[in-house]
Amino acid sequence: MSLDSLDPIVSLAKRRGFIFQSSEIYGGLSSCYDYGPLGVELKNNVKRAWWRSMVQERDDIVGLDSSILMHPTTWKASGHLDGFSDPLVDCKKCKKRWRADHLLQNESIKPKFRPEHSSEVKCPDCGGELTDVRRFNLMFKTFMGPVEDEAGEIYLRPETCQGIYLNFLNVIQSMRKKLPFGVAQIGKAFRNEITPGNFTFRTREFEQMEQQYFIHPKEAKKVFKVWKEERRRWYLDLGIKKSNLRFREHEKDELAHYAKAALDIEFSYPGLGFKELAGVHNRGDWDLSQHEKFSGQNLKYKDQETGEEYTPYIVETSDGADRATLAFLADAYEEVETRSGEKDGKHEKEVVLRLHKDLAPIKAAFLPLSKKEPLRKLTAEVQAKVRRDYMTQYDETGSIGKRYRRQDEIGTPYCVTVDFDSLEDKMVTVRDRDTMEQARVAIEELKIYLDEKL
Amino acid sequence: MSLDSLDPIVSLAKRRGFIFQSSEIYGGLSSCYDYGPLGVELKNNVKRAWWRSMVQERDDIVGLDSSILMHPTTWKASGHLDGFSDPLVDCKKCKKRWRADHLLQNESIKPKFRPEHSSEVKCPDCGGELTDVRRFNLMFKTFMGPVEDEAGEIYLRPETCQGIYLNFLNVIQSMRKKLPFGVAQIGKAFRNEITPGNFTFRTREFEQMEQQYFIHPKEAKKVFKVWKEERRRWYLDLGIKKSNLRFREHEKDELAHYAKAALDIEFSYPGLGFKELAGVHNRGDWDLSQHEKFSGQNLKYKDQETGEEYTPYIVETSDGADRATLAFLADAYEEVETRSGEKDGKHEKEVVLRLHKDLAPIKAAFLPLSKKEPLRKLTAEVQAKVRRDYMTQYDETGSIGKRYRRQDEIGTPYCVTVDFDSLEDKMVTVRDRDTMEQARVAIEELKIYLDEKL
Repeated sequence: MSLDSLDPIVSLAKRRGFIFQSSEIYGGLSSCYDYGPLGVELKNNVKRAWWRSMVQERDDIVGLDSSILMHPTTWKASGHLDGFSDPLVDCKKCKKRWRADHLLQNESIKPKFRPEHSSEVKCPDCGGELTDVRRFNLMFKTFMGPVEDEAGEIYLRPETCQGIYLNFLNVIQSMRKKLPFGVAQIGKAFRNEITPGNFTFRTREFEQMEQQYFIHPKEAKKVFKVWKEERRRWYLDLGIKKSNLRFREHEKDELAHYAKAALDIEFSYPGLGFKELAGVHNRGDWDLSQHEKFSGQNLKYKDQETGEEYTPYIVETSDGADRATLAFLADAYEEVETRSGEKDGKHEKEVVLRLHKDLAPIKAAFLPLSKKEPLRKLTAEVQAKVRRDYMTQYDETGSIGKRYRRQDEIGTPYCVTVDFDSLEDKMVTVRDRDTMEQARVAIEELKIYLDEKL
Repeated sequence: MSLDSLDPIVSLAKRRGFIFQSSEIYGGLSSCYDYGPLGVELKNNVKRAWWRSMVQERDDIVGLDSSILMHPTTWKASGHLDGFSDPLVDCKKCKKRWRADHLLQNESIKPKFRPEHSSEVKCPDCGGELTDVRRFNLMFKTFMGPVEDEAGEIYLRPETCQGIYLNFLNVIQSMRKKLPFGVAQIGKAFRNEITPGNFTFRTREFEQMEQQYFIHPKEAKKVFKVWKEERRRWYLDLGIKKSNLRFREHEKDELAHYAKAALDIEFSYPGLGFKELAGVHNRGDWDLSQHEKFSGQNLKYKDQETGEEYTPYIVETSDGADRATLAFLADAYEEVETRSGEKDGKHEKEVVLRLHKDLAPIKAAFLPLSKKEPLRKLTAEVQAKVRRDYMTQYDETGSIGKRYRRQDEIGTPYCVTVDFDSLEDKMVTVRDRDTMEQARVAIEELKIYLDEKL
């Protein structure tokens, strides 16, 4: 059974501390979100899994963490100052603002205002006359230094990859890298979107996980194909259902100015349908050529063996940390018939979050059968044996069934119950979220048991 | 021997890929820095160690990750819109700008311009007349939405803690928390400092590791003392030398508007002397009271057992991730007489970075004695056994002595050498960075050996 809307995810996210509307007590800040106690663990796990697969387990990729504020010439060179904009029109009558391209696509126009020719476009709300189209740059502008003048004008980066290009020479020199190699980075980016929305799917502040692979131009097509499969495999390995993923190649006429080829990995978001989750892009030599031109630095690569000197091509993999987190949540979400034996209402379903064990916010919950001592104390002792290595949670409130249910709902793979027998036999019961099987495990062996499972 | 300047750290950081000047190919962006391939690992390890000690290993603290962009009323309530500013004066003659408070403290004033009375202050450079003092707000301002008007004016957060206060109710409700409890967060903050400097010590973009502990007012003094010791212990446990740390209590007249008591943990930065590394603050009920006033929400806490209702006090611990990273680097930096047997020049010293094993960017380096097969292949196989769990590096270039030296310089605790005997006896040599002892370890046992050491 698949969801037909994001609503149950939004509700679970708020109720169980995954994701909150930002600045909620002040009525919220449009399209900004805060990750709660469980959400930050989940998102951190997504980022760690990406880093492990992209950096730690590879010889050919190194990491980087460049600053959000960058020299403004970066955005001249990249084309963002000139080209990164949306076309806007205002209604002269009601002052409402519209995306001109949306109006021309007849989106959100009431039938009576729908034009037959583009010159007839009127305000979809009141039918008023519209202003000429103005370009609106999507970068957030701010000022560094005490005076608000052009000299101090800087931008919040709209993408993390430029920080990698600017450090191309630094990485080669400090890490003694030879082509092909990649540089990976996780970090925030900002876009002043006119129409953000759909929960954390499109937000003005978001986090990217980007990797730039520097190669000889003639390798580009082959490398593009390899990354396309690699990035898809990563999502599958972390449990995303095959049927929820698909590729979409960009047509020639929708390619960005820098792209030679582009592909989206799309995820079927509940209620939204297949939407971009990640991308793989052949950016050609656009980026390094432009930064070479604007900085005057030589950004060519000289092959020490062949003597050939050339501007590397770049194949980029771009994943949204927030979109990935949302996809993992949605994909893992399952409503089942009550199985805990604890009904909170008639016909009520229970939620099980079948998150991959690497992603689950809490790896093991520790539940004393009763609040009475010495059970509490023993439970804390057992928990202490594993908590340096694993994120754990202690819960003593309510029946065991209710507590299992609580942990299922947040995706905890293992529940460890300490009962009165444990005092005697020094064993605990470990319950598996998915199989619901219960194993009796010696306290002394628990760490090894969990190491093998997790 | 301790350093008397940051220069050797800055040089090592650039040469070995720890920290680069941001936007360097464009001449750099003032006081912004990028973490290179080793720097990002080091800083991530610092953040993970903090998170483990503050969140994972505690029952009373949960994590959070709130957005950088927040509702602007946040900064009215917090006092930042009115009070978070520096006093500036301009020279009417040479147009240079100065911090008025620095001029009055006679800092950076040439003797001939040094005034005897504050009314006599002239431009320290040219002696010109100065303008009246103007307040300059330290928050970076930007605009959300398409129009640059007051309605869309927002700020980059100058501190992360406000995101925690705004989520006080969300955390209590979703996590069923009772006082006392804490909320921890790691994230970027931005301050448009007039005089940043000293490498990554004072930057305009920086990362904080903050924790807010919510308590009954009568507990404040006791809790303050506990956190003071806790935070110091964390640095000592991660290897900072005791002599490089000290406490500094703030005098009554230097307390911020929200603070009832404040204490710095200072580190002796080379060339700078003892400077703030971390802080512990008793913020009283200032924050929750203000947000209650401005939001109209009830932010009081009701004790279910006693029935008492009150505005919690907050004891904050505030650590700079960049300052901590710099402190760990500086504290670990040691120059020793040549010990690798590989001199690169006459009387040259070698650098050993004695980083705590939890912080070292690379946990183990894998070095084939020769580039010849089948040594390369075997080395890769041995490395594969541990690289899912540990950050590793492969190096086959230069003599073994040179490679040891390279790893010492970046703080790698263990070097694993694969030699021709390894092909026969299936054992490798593990060399310890600090003791320089070498152990012969069975390949099959290597993972367990490193697990115990690391």
